[in-house]
Amino acid sequence: MDFSSFLTSLGTSFVIFLVLMLLFTWLSRKPGNTVIYYPNRILKGLDPYKRGSSTRNPLAWIREAMSSTEQDIISMSGYDTAVYFVFLRTVLGILVLTGIALLPILLPVAATDDSVKSTAAKTNGTFSDLDYSYMGNVKAKSPRLWAFLIATYWVSFVTYYLLWKAYKHVSGLRANALMNHEVKLKPEQFAILVRDIPPVPAGQTRQKQVDSYFESIYPKTFYRSMVVTDNKVVNKLWKELEGYKKKLAHAEAVYAQSKKAGKPEGARPTNRIGFLGLIGNKVDSIEYYTKKIKEVTPKLELERKVTLREKQQNAALVFFKSRVIAASAAQSLHSQMVDKWTVSNAPEPRQVIWTNLKIKFYQRQVRQYVVYVIVALTILFFMIPIGFISAFTTLENLKKYLPFLESIVNLDAIKTVLEAYLPQLALIIFLALLPKFLHFLSKAEGIPSESHVVRASSGKYFYFTVLDVFIGVSVGGTLFGTLKTIEKNPNSIVSLLGNSLPLNATFFLTYVALRFFVGYGLELSRIVPLIIFHLKKRYLCKTEAELKEAWLPGDLKYGTRVPGDMLIATIVLCYSVIAPIIILFGMVYFGLGWLILRNQVLNVYVPSYESYGRMWPHMHTRILAALILHQVTMFGYFGVKKFYCAPFLITLIIPSLIFGFVCHKKFYRFFCDTPLEVALRDSKEIPNNNMELIFKSYIPPSLSSEKIDDVPV
Amino acid sequence: MDFSSFLTSLGTSFVIFLVLMLLFTWLSRKPGNTVIYYPNRILKGLDPYKRGSSTRNPLAWIREAMSSTEQDIISMSGYDTAVYFVFLRTVLGILVLTGIALLPILLPVAATDDSVKSTAAKTNGTFSDLDYSYMGNVKAKSPRLWAFLIATYWVSFVTYYLLWKAYKHVSGLRANALMNHEVKLKPEQFAILVRDIPPVPAGQTRQKQVDSYFESIYPKTFYRSMVVTDNKVVNKLWKELEGYKKKLAHAEAVYAQSKKAGKPEGARPTNRIGFLGLIGNKVDSIEYYTKKIKEVTPKLELERKVTLREKQQNAALVFFKSRVIAASAAQSLHSQMVDKWTVSNAPEPRQVIWTNLKIKFYQRQVRQYVVYVIVALTILFFMIPIGFISAFTTLENLKKYLPFLESIVNLDAIKTVLEAYLPQLALIIFLALLPKFLHFLSKAEGIPSESHVVRASSGKYFYFTVLDVFIGVSVGGTLFGTLKTIEKNPNSIVSLLGNSLPLNATFFLTYVALRFFVGYGLELSRIVPLIIFHLKKRYLCKTEAELKEAWLPGDLKYGTRVPGDMLIATIVLCYSVIAPIIILFGMVYFGLGWLILRNQVLNVYVPSYESYGRMWPHMHTRILAALILHQVTMFGYFGVKKFYCAPFLITLIIPSLIFGFVCHKKFYRFFCDTPLEVALRDSKEIPNNNMELIFKSYIPPSLSSEKIDDVPV
Repeated sequence: MDFSSFLTSLGTSFVIFLVLMLLFTWLSRKPGNTVIYYPNRILKGLDPYKRGSSTRNPLAWIREAMSSTEQDIISMSGYDTAVYFVFLRTVLGILVLTGIALLPILLPVAATDDSVKSTAAKTNGTFSDLDYSYMGNVKAKSPRLWAFLIATYWVSFVTYYLLWKAYKHVSGLRANALMNHEVKLKPEQFAILVRDIPPVPAGQTRQKQVDSYFESIYPKTFYRSMVVTDNKVVNKLWKELEGYKKKLAHAEAVYAQSKKAGKPEGARPTNRIGFLGLIGNKVDSIEYYTKKIKEVTPKLELERKVTLREKQQNAALVFFKSRVIAASAAQSLHSQMVDKWTVSNAPEPRQVIWTNLKIKFYQRQVRQYVVYVIVALTILFFMIPIGFISAFTTLENLKKYLPFLESIVNLDAIKTVLEAYLPQLALIIFLALLPKFLHFLSKAEGIPSESHVVRASSGKYFYFTVLDVFIGVSVGGTLFGTLKTIEKNPNSIVSLLGNSLPLNATFFLTYVALRFFVGYGLELSRIVPLIIFHLKKRYLCKTEAELKEAWLPGDLKYGTRVPGDMLIATIVLCYSVIAPIIILFGMVYFGLGWLILRNQVLNVYVPSYESYGRMWPHMHTRILAALILHQVTMFGYFGVKKFYCAPFLITLIIPSLIFGFVCHKKFYRFFCDTPLEVALRDSKEIPNNNMELIFKSYIPPSLSSEKIDDVPV
Repeated sequence: MDFSSFLTSLGTSFVIFLVLMLLFTWLSRKPGNTVIYYPNRILKGLDPYKRGSSTRNPLAWIREAMSSTEQDIISMSGYDTAVYFVFLRTVLGILVLTGIALLPILLPVAATDDSVKSTAAKTNGTFSDLDYSYMGNVKAKSPRLWAFLIATYWVSFVTYYLLWKAYKHVSGLRANALMNHEVKLKPEQFAILVRDIPPVPAGQTRQKQVDSYFESIYPKTFYRSMVVTDNKVVNKLWKELEGYKKKLAHAEAVYAQSKKAGKPEGARPTNRIGFLGLIGNKVDSIEYYTKKIKEVTPKLELERKVTLREKQQNAALVFFKSRVIAASAAQSLHSQMVDKWTVSNAPEPRQVIWTNLKIKFYQRQVRQYVVYVIVALTILFFMIPIGFISAFTTLENLKKYLPFLESIVNLDAIKTVLEAYLPQLALIIFLALLPKFLHFLSKAEGIPSESHVVRASSGKYFYFTVLDVFIGVSVGGTLFGTLKTIEKNPNSIVSLLGNSLPLNATFFLTYVALRFFVGYGLELSRIVPLIIFHLKKRYLCKTEAELKEAWLPGDLKYGTRVPGDMLIATIVLCYSVIAPIIILFGMVYFGLGWLILRNQVLNVYVPSYESYGRMWPHMHTRILAALILHQVTMFGYFGVKKFYCAPFLITLIIPSLIFGFVCHKKFYRFFCDTPLEVALRDSKEIPNNNMELIFKSYIPPSLSSEKIDDVPV
């Protein structure tokens, strides 16, 4: 890529960004759009326009975002979000500190050498102006390489320092979160999750079995237990009922509207009762749904009773009257057989994955390994099925198997577009579906809480992006040619990395710029949700509930957002010394991201769960992994440059590993278990009334009317 | 080794065994020897000759050993011993079950083939009669190899089955031990060990800091805490005082004796006060030691006070009024910083290693890795220093550096002996000192309890014996010649094992026979302790206490005994299919061992600690490791035999790994943590009186007079 096309690409991205910013400024002021631009404030019962006149200022959101404190973030969006900002801030800090030191030193050192020019002269090759600023411009064995070696050390120590500070800070945040008992009752702090309960002894009920087991161990603090039931049928009935209720409300709204609009007696809405509402007899909707609701309601009632009585499974939630006892119970071995009565922290009520709770001990292990193997295969061979599908989805095949499309396909304009995109269609679909697939796989492992599933799937996605996108793109071309060399000497993987990375520096510069200009532009302007909302509002939604559903913003989607950011962080860290100019781009990415997401979490996104920063250790480990990848790459590249001091970098990889080990030992267990000193703080006796609330909060909605009274104690 | 020399060696060992047995029968009946042959009974206050007339029967001990139940073992020697017998029984069971199936089938299958004869005929080599019975006698690619393949499967499944049963049984034993609260109060069940206590806040004492921390978390069940102090000086003074007391008693006994023996006024004993009592002025012993005791006693009193007040360290024992709370507290994270206030189960009072308690969190980690590296280096390079020392300890050097020995060395008889043994002197000394060295290393890791140190050092010793003795001997010769092949192709290690093992079958047969005939003969007859005791009794001991010290038998010494047995088990398992005759030898080893040790633990050894079977998981894992080594070896040997079904053995290694994984998951944590349901059983409120006893049992003897009253609360 030459310099002018690089500038063009950069310029285009910037123009798109400007347009999106202007759109945001214009659209966000329209009152009809507040539900898209300020849903979090609306849901919290706050006035979206609290700032009065300042909304006239198109840059007011920036001032607001800049002036918001961590405490604001926590109160508006929870601790997980605050931790996400610690992550953004830490990476930004690393980049700023390295940028300040590296840019003024490495750029002149590289630019005043002339390795690129002489190589180009020799081979008549072309080179871009950017290449002057890269480490590639320094001659082999040059003493100038010392500057780059020291730069690598600088990057590493800055990273250690900021990561350490951040881990300490997040650990404090989490401690605050767990200790702060005043704002809201946290039911999960009073409960533990018990799985792998042994079969019920003859002549006892499951409920009795669980109660007597825990009552004997915790005679004073045991409150009660909730046996997990198989809710499949009852959930289905409940969903059916809710669906009918919604449709009835919709039909009534349509009827009311028609009264206003046309004839005073109104037009009663009708629908077909066959497949998807497309075929079958036409019926009067209001009558039909009212009848259906009457039919389903008693069925649901009956099923609720049956579920509670007969469909009890081998898992339970156990409630205690004391936070400390619950925290300690979740960490203690209860049964002599380690695979029975296994305990763990209870997940938040809203994030319990009920269907996973019954999965047995060894099955969980097996599932985990199977999932790991599937993910590894996906990462290794993801190109194979895509290539296969691409070969199949050609224009010819399209015409052959879908002949009715032939007339359209033959249009010249459409043909060109199809020819350009059909081969990549499979890849695009694959990449769009991948996060869902990984989420599905992680859920299949048998993990009991949603936030844990998100962490697991974000880890898998991170490996996919780093291995396939980053390493794949940079090494890809060189790899297959040299596969034989690697077989002979595995060390050459390192020098392969060192060899191929510099070739792609400019490509990744463009990639990062695209991500922040277009990505964050779309993020802030929310064009897509806006359009979808207005379409739905006009054509589909008739009731308030439907309307709310149409604008509900969802959460930050850590599962894909964090790996995405991590990919950028990895790229920037790996290139920070080879092509220092990328640090600037990284700074813009994380700076802009910090600013824009600050606005988004204050105004838009609504967190769907709270894990009190349990994502952090993963973020920490992955930043460190990126650093180690950087060190390995530099080791390889110094080797390529025949710099005799390259082994000094080995002595840098060891501190990285020790640093990771120490952090893990010092902090990690706190992110898994609740320390008793933390559970104790500000804890007082909880009145039974509140205990009942805690208990009720875990009752799934499909069972809610029954569970409390009818539980056979 | 040819057949006749094999028989000679076997015969010699057997004769030695018979002689030792006769000696035992004769010596054990003499009343003066009861303290050597029945010390455990004597210490337990039982009559050594309870069996009355049956002592006339020389084989009575066998009947007694055979009829003793597991409960007898537990009451006489504790749970650790019972678990050791489970280990012996399990290995014996594996050998009996494999022997029954393998010997009648594999011996004829091998003996009727003629590979050995034909090879020998071709190369004019010699072969022994035993070689006919080995798998080596089967021709390459022969279908007879199927029998050996199936035999390998049989060995594996028998091992799985018996190991599983044994693990279940031991788990039950341990549960019984922990639940059985009636027989004796177990102080360690009411205490936890707290380490890495943060620095004392200003204006507080260490004791207050610990007390207030645990009192707030466990307001109802916290009893009190004992801060660990630096007892170095006080211990030294105490030892000095005890030494003087002993010497005074000795001197008085000598004086009393002399009164009886000769002149009525007696001869007052004297001693020199210089170096080792060899130089310096002669003084009257009784006066001298009385004066010394008077001098040291107030010093000790003062030092005790100083120690308790000023030498408090960053560790403490915390006592609870409830078993369940103590068990749960030992498993719970207490502090937000994971490396502070770390808790663990309290060791038994008698096995606490006080000096290790103060070692800090990261220092423990570092020490552990350093020790691992030292052990690995010792295992890898143990021959180098020995070779070096051997080269130095030649006859010539002896004469040169110790010229006063020259006249002795020049004697012909002594010269021959020296020439034979001097080169091996270093090896002999090394092997004798190795267990002590490994024990020292394990202690240096910072482990807080003696039994844990023994487990750790026995593990290290096991690796040493298997890697250096077993693999070293069998592969040694072939290894150095083929080192280059291995570098090229690491797979050839497996075929190397397969190649070299069969060559040493007869050698190991002899080795096993030597171990059981001579080893167990010496064990039962206790010739060495008997001689030492009688020598001490005649020349050194004057008081009852000194006499008791002279016959105290010590414990079973698991640290070397278990690795020794494991080495035999590994050898026998590895050769079980290649040279099935070794199964017979293994059966004798473990059968005889079971019988003789049964007698020894009932009558002789006194356990010095109790860990409730925590050694078992290590034994289990190592038997399994031996099995996997067997499978790998067989895989290599089938490859050598060019048997096309060799890959079937790979499918056998995978079940072994899964079996190990499942056992680990199902049972292991129970051997580290106390499950609450077990701690709960039969537990009632403990009166404060007993709590005080529990607390006192942890006070080291050097501090005992003070600690209780003067603890600054």
